[in-house]
Amino acid sequence: MSERYFEDFVIGQVHKPAGRVRVEKDEIIAFARQFDPQPFHLDEEAARKSIFGRLVASGWHTAALTMRLIAGSEYRAATGTIGLGFDGMRWPVPVLPGDELRIESDVLEMRPSKSRPDRGLMKIRTRTFNQNGEVVQELIANAMVPRRPAGQVQ
Amino acid sequence: MSERYFEDFVIGQVHKPAGRVRVEKDEIIAFARQFDPQPFHLDEEAARKSIFGRLVASGWHTAALTMRLIAGSEYRAATGTIGLGFDGMRWPVPVLPGDELRIESDVLEMRPSKSRPDRGLMKIRTRTFNQNGEVVQELIANAMVPRRPAGQVQ
Repeated sequence: MSERYFEDFVIGQVHKPAGRVRVEKDEIIAFARQFDPQPFHLDEEAARKSIFGRLVASGWHTAALTMRLIAGSEYRAATGTIGLGFDGMRWPVPVLPGDELRIESDVLEMRPSKSRPDRGLMKIRTRTFNQNGEVVQELIANAMVPRRPAGQVQ
Repeated sequence: MSERYFEDFVIGQVHKPAGRVRVEKDEIIAFARQFDPQPFHLDEEAARKSIFGRLVASGWHTAALTMRLIAGSEYRAATGTIGLGFDGMRWPVPVLPGDELRIESDVLEMRPSKSRPDRGLMKIRTRTFNQNGEVVQELIANAMVPRRPAGQVQ
């Protein structure tokens, strides 16, 4: 797994990392107990009576699993990607027990940092898909990545 | 703790739930191992050499802890708040081991749902503060909450 510098990213290029993560029911419930204890994330019977009609993962669980796929991919930047924030995030389809998630990322914008000449700024779209090809999350993120040190051969 | 309907929210009113959550170092590392395994979230020595200069929580951990504070507050909606997505999120200051977080929320916009007459749509800003009053996260969320059933007394 080679790590990337700002100079290695190209606007419009779509990265499709091979990583997959399967979401189990007990993980959905454990995450919800710790961070998002709402009935439709905690209990199948209560979830059946909710607007979802079934147990669904917390959107924050989907977001955290997406970060795991990003961190484990060859798409990641050398020394780590610093998330500065988001321009938008959507959860159009809920994540269900047994779903298998994967991501696709592309760079929408990039520019060198003015305040930190050793860094570049990128706007990255990361879409998370389930096994049926449905988008379960779309995230437009602003991130800071290192530039290749001067004199270093690619 | 009384649950709220769409009709109980007021644009501009700032809610300051009493809940606090203290973030321990081992929790920062455990979350990072599971979801965001980057050196500055995992290991104090590696973090010292990183851009942060010290161990910091994953932004997704801050987001999940914020959800816990929202879910535990009197601000929450009856039958649960359905997050539809975000217009923006920022992490201006990192969360450090030992930080104690709290939230403030206010409604920026609200309107009845056209497709679901029993629901209302709200744009809510939730800011997460550390014990020094610094904003560690600002989230502009679009959420769906239930309307008060017809005939039900407040």
